[in-house]
Amino acid sequence: MTDPDSWVLAVDLGGTRLRMAVVTPAGELLYEEQHPTPKTRPDILAQIWALLDRGRDWVAAQGKGLRGIGISTGGRVDFERGEVVDATALLPDWRRVPLRDLTVEHLGLPTWVDNDGNCAALGELWFGAGQDCHHFLSVVVGTGIGGGVVLDRQVLRGVAGTAGELGHISVDYQGPVCPCGNWGCVELFASGSGLANLAQTLWEAGVLQFTHKTITSATEITAREVGEAARLGNPVAQDLIQRAGRILGTALTSLLHTLNPERVIVGGTVLDLGEDYWQPLVNTVQSRAMAPAPLVRSPLREAGLLGAAALVWQNGASEGIKPPQSP
Amino acid sequence: MTDPDSWVLAVDLGGTRLRMAVVTPAGELLYEEQHPTPKTRPDILAQIWALLDRGRDWVAAQGKGLRGIGISTGGRVDFERGEVVDATALLPDWRRVPLRDLTVEHLGLPTWVDNDGNCAALGELWFGAGQDCHHFLSVVVGTGIGGGVVLDRQVLRGVAGTAGELGHISVDYQGPVCPCGNWGCVELFASGSGLANLAQTLWEAGVLQFTHKTITSATEITAREVGEAARLGNPVAQDLIQRAGRILGTALTSLLHTLNPERVIVGGTVLDLGEDYWQPLVNTVQSRAMAPAPLVRSPLREAGLLGAAALVWQNGASEGIKPPQSP
Repeated sequence: MTDPDSWVLAVDLGGTRLRMAVVTPAGELLYEEQHPTPKTRPDILAQIWALLDRGRDWVAAQGKGLRGIGISTGGRVDFERGEVVDATALLPDWRRVPLRDLTVEHLGLPTWVDNDGNCAALGELWFGAGQDCHHFLSVVVGTGIGGGVVLDRQVLRGVAGTAGELGHISVDYQGPVCPCGNWGCVELFASGSGLANLAQTLWEAGVLQFTHKTITSATEITAREVGEAARLGNPVAQDLIQRAGRILGTALTSLLHTLNPERVIVGGTVLDLGEDYWQPLVNTVQSRAMAPAPLVRSPLREAGLLGAAALVWQNGASEGIKPPQSP
Repeated sequence: MTDPDSWVLAVDLGGTRLRMAVVTPAGELLYEEQHPTPKTRPDILAQIWALLDRGRDWVAAQGKGLRGIGISTGGRVDFERGEVVDATALLPDWRRVPLRDLTVEHLGLPTWVDNDGNCAALGELWFGAGQDCHHFLSVVVGTGIGGGVVLDRQVLRGVAGTAGELGHISVDYQGPVCPCGNWGCVELFASGSGLANLAQTLWEAGVLQFTHKTITSATEITAREVGEAARLGNPVAQDLIQRAGRILGTALTSLLHTLNPERVIVGGTVLDLGEDYWQPLVNTVQSRAMAPAPLVRSPLREAGLLGAAALVWQNGASEGIKPPQSP
């Protein structure tokens, strides 16, 4: 039943890692490569195309054909134009990049580009916790916080493609200024980098101490180290993580009041912090929301890469590309 | 060109006033009544039906016919069921009221019920600053803050009809508890009642003084009095109003990051406070939002009543009621 020419090349460009995979309509990742993200725009582009060339050659060697290319990238993306608008500090040289057109020129395959938050939401819609759902939010809590809003099984992009920036909801109108320009963004408190920054400040003040590891400089303190300290019973570390969970819960409650979705799908590496993060998050939403929606953990290891692939099937219909399944 | 039988009876039920009007497809209010809102559920229902009976008689006396009835009410509404779910302190006895079915039973006309925030948004869509717009937010700042989200010219209602509760976005994760259950809701700071509460506290502490009027009890202090003091140059009153505008601007910035609309339409009596409220509101959004959208003042005096009428034309198609115009 699977069309042998329905495979897709998917790219996931993050601040630290650049990944490429061949993805089948069943959501299998058949050929994968992963590299550190290069530092400059020409190097990033060259690396993306080298990966895509190798992926295409691999598919050809299997005697198969390709439907197209889907690219997930950090930063803000003008989806209609397939252009990276800006990625702030995440990828400093990554702005005003007409990524779709450049890639089409290089590879000659239909290509779609979207930001990582929207791609993760699309990954959930096609292969994850959103498969049976029409109306949900997807939140990915990693170094930053990415988001996607799905209404009627479509990713909401807004008039300039910047909808779904759920990490940049303010939870404190007097809070610290975020690189995005807003004040008190939830990402500053509840993301991996936010948690690490707070822990660094507390370590420098002598309030937070680590016993499982010798720390000689604040920059060595990551969310993972805070999590390890919490697991070993450090009450300051536990408090920090619980507070981060509660603050994300506050932002999600505001989103429920705005959008009233069926569920909220939460993924990302920060969930590895465990119940110290998850329980306060869930409890905050359950106790504060007028109509609480279930919070569900993402079952996907690679929501962004799968969503990048789904860009091709979801949007290719207008170019005569048939979706392999009705999602 | 106007169908003589396309008139509608519209009701707007607020915490203090109950209004009824006959509305034409051109947005004219032909017959209007306004009364104080009764205190109990049976009295409210009896008053609504008495008004509707008189409206129907008036229309019949003109030799015209009616398309149906649209009702805007404070509180949360299950739109599909036409039922008022809850209205908290605004209308204490107004919960679990199957208002649509009761009204159909009494009047025998097709009836739709929605909350006041959604109705105001619909009023803007049909007759106000949303007529030329596909994707906008409507915010009404009065005693409370009501909201509506319009996407693709449809009001977003969500899975349980509680989308668009834009007054219950938290701007302070550590803020005071709101009657809705959430903490630090923007309504507590930036609405007329929020402003009055803060002014009362400052007056009791001796920080805020009034010279234009003798105040003998904190309960006499309303947003209007704060506005009058500000106009007369009272710096504490001016600060309070400017702060309220900035805080609403913070909440709207979060909404722009979530939904990326074409514009935000702001209405309600609190705008009568003038530039002290409006300028900080606009400046906050312009300086903090990644992709600022224009803030536009509502041109409508009766957005809720017009939106209640539009419920009939917007939703009546499924019952063979043709809209009088393509909005």
